[in-house]
Amino acid sequence: MTLDLLTTLRQQNPIVLTLANDVTVQDVANGLNALGASPIMSAEVDEAEAMVTIAGAVCLNLGTLTKLQLAQMRAVGAAANRQHKPVILDPVAVGAVPYRLQAAQTLLRTVHADVIRGNAGEIAALAAWNWQAKGIDAGTGSGDLVAMAQACAQKYHCVVVLSGATDIVTDGQQVVRVHNGTELFQLHVGSGDLLSSLVAAFAAVQPQNLLAAAATAATVLAGTGELVAAQLTASRPGTFAMLLIDKLHLVTPAELSKIAVVD
Amino acid sequence: MTLDLLTTLRQQNPIVLTLANDVTVQDVANGLNALGASPIMSAEVDEAEAMVTIAGAVCLNLGTLTKLQLAQMRAVGAAANRQHKPVILDPVAVGAVPYRLQAAQTLLRTVHADVIRGNAGEIAALAAWNWQAKGIDAGTGSGDLVAMAQACAQKYHCVVVLSGATDIVTDGQQVVRVHNGTELFQLHVGSGDLLSSLVAAFAAVQPQNLLAAAATAATVLAGTGELVAAQLTASRPGTFAMLLIDKLHLVTPAELSKIAVVD
Amino acid sequence: MTLDLLTTLRQQNPIVLTLANDVTVQDVANGLNALGASPIMSAEVDEAEAMVTIAGAVCLNLGTLTKLQLAQMRAVGAAANRQHKPVILDPVAVGAVPYRLQAAQTLLRTVHADVIRGNAGEIAALAAWNWQAKGIDAGTGSGDLVAMAQACAQKYHCVVVLSGATDIVTDGQQVVRVHNGTELFQLHVGSGDLLSSLVAAFAAVQPQNLLAAAATAATVLAGTGELVAAQLTASRPGTFAMLLIDKLHLVTPAELSKIAVVD
Repeated sequence: MTLDLLTTLRQQNPIVLTLANDVTVQDVANGLNALGASPIMSAEVDEAEAMVTIAGAVCLNLGTLTKLQLAQMRAVGAAANRQHKPVILDPVAVGAVPYRLQAAQTLLRTVHADVIRGNAGEIAALAAWNWQAKGIDAGTGSGDLVAMAQACAQKYHCVVVLSGATDIVTDGQQVVRVHNGTELFQLHVGSGDLLSSLVAAFAAVQPQNLLAAAATAATVLAGTGELVAAQLTASRPGTFAMLLIDKLHLVTPAELSKIAVVD
Repeated sequence: MTLDLLTTLRQQNPIVLTLANDVTVQDVANGLNALGASPIMSAEVDEAEAMVTIAGAVCLNLGTLTKLQLAQMRAVGAAANRQHKPVILDPVAVGAVPYRLQAAQTLLRTVHADVIRGNAGEIAALAAWNWQAKGIDAGTGSGDLVAMAQACAQKYHCVVVLSGATDIVTDGQQVVRVHNGTELFQLHVGSGDLLSSLVAAFAAVQPQNLLAAAATAATVLAGTGELVAAQLTASRPGTFAMLLIDKLHLVTPAELSKIAVVD
Repeated sequence: MTLDLLTTLRQQNPIVLTLANDVTVQDVANGLNALGASPIMSAEVDEAEAMVTIAGAVCLNLGTLTKLQLAQMRAVGAAANRQHKPVILDPVAVGAVPYRLQAAQTLLRTVHADVIRGNAGEIAALAAWNWQAKGIDAGTGSGDLVAMAQACAQKYHCVVVLSGATDIVTDGQQVVRVHNGTELFQLHVGSGDLLSSLVAAFAAVQPQNLLAAAATAATVLAGTGELVAAQLTASRPGTFAMLLIDKLHLVTPAELSKIAVVD
């Protein structure tokens, strides 16, 4: 992983197609745009092929899925696979809602996801890992989380980003841990959605090394959040969200390198 | 009504399922999250039962209704009624658009709303009260408004929150008036939507006393807005919206008690 | 064009119906509201006639179009034409996605757009102008852009607002250029969407002179953005978005007159 990829991203201004979560779509578009990517959203299956053609990567977010949107995701995902554009899947709430787990599994039978980005409960559900019993917020340590992320990556032949206090990025063998971040991410809805679309943006500029692309995305977002949080004297979720958009535009690889804790 | 319910809410972190207004969904999710509840949204009827099962309460918002969403609202509302989870209805624009009034009335024939939250024009339409003639913004005084809210509550056997400069909360007999607030709420779109979902959050933690839950929700939002407005030296709707999210997270029952004007 | 129209708008508080881009709908609603208009959104074709009846103007935004939404746009547009309410079309991405160009052209065969607001690539596509070859961001100068905007206006018998570093407003003959603005508009998603809905707001209060209404809308938004940008010491897209909403509420015709560069 190298943070110079951020400079490349800003030079190339990749188009990222997000099939979005209605709840967070505006923030995701603004986060992509502020960082230096070019967001485009779509809701109509009939423009799937054309949208994928102009995009550098695709993010499929199950946050407010419908049957119509699932059909669109199958078409967009298949077109992206054919056109060799990276596909990032964000399996929102598959750990909590059986319908969503089934929808994600069905989607993954016809679309290859190059990267899956989820929290512990979501990755556990996809990996069919015995995690639920321990509760989503109270796992027994990062050892388990790493093995679970690796199992998920091996099962779906993809890179997995398991985000949390420490983000775990793995292709099933290699593991990168990003220790940066701030608890303020939990106070603003859509941090995970944004990370998934940022992974797509970095994957668009480094498709030949998705592990590095995903790790860079995680480091950039977690590090930028940490820089913003350091300025705040109280837990202000509204102010944090605004300053995060500011800083995604202003942050430099040098600033991030100074604080990055990645192993 | 007691403001200690806010402490209970923060301890329990109830899941609130909102079938949302597309215009304001991000703000509503962030407001719920900042206060201490856990927002979840859904757009697919096939996950209705599962979503209700994990939720503590349900908010049905007609803000950008479609026929598909109305079918989903019937399923979610019926499941919530069966599972004894509080249902809050926000009948957006039923006072102005006949199609919406009909949709709300049809919905209310199969789904019992435990709380209805609307402005004067919306409550008047549901109560079939002669209000329109006077104009929505120029009623003849709070006496009429109270009687109208009571009539609506009696008609639908529910609690009514009629929001305005003074919020009126009633179960058809008892009446609580919340006099807090700020005109800045009118300058930011979605204050009413947020109140409806906050009523759901408080209903989730106090389902046995919905009058108190609704009155607390109204006091918390109106009081928090008032505290934020007191810091501003000009009418800044963008800044107000951001600081409101901040303060929903930071506000304490003690701060609110000091300024609450409730009778 | 006269900036006093802003005072009229604030007095009349026109209802603007926007068939919205899901990505930016919240910001557009807040921008309209902050300025002094009254936003309403709708997603259901069956309420088309009633919505148009209460609205002063209509904005059709193709940003996240679906087949269902196109059917709604046909109904809303036809109703607005019949009721002599101004129709503003925002043809998002018709320059980049052939499906969207076809959708816009089909829509324009049954609905008369009174104003079309787009960027250079979008107006070029509608005018069938040889622009794409030159690249969207690297045209050969404003001479070409004016001729292209005029050709589009003549083709569709409407006013065209071609927005960019200089906004060009034309009815096919007369041309108004608005030189105000800031590059920060490019850093916040939805500035174009907001302009389209603001054009609708001004069209609602001055339907008999849509060229002036559109030019005023462009001047108000560009000038307000310029005033906000002048306060910022760095390119902060999040802060800019928030302060833009503030200033749309606070800005006066006198302030705008002082800085307006319109010819």
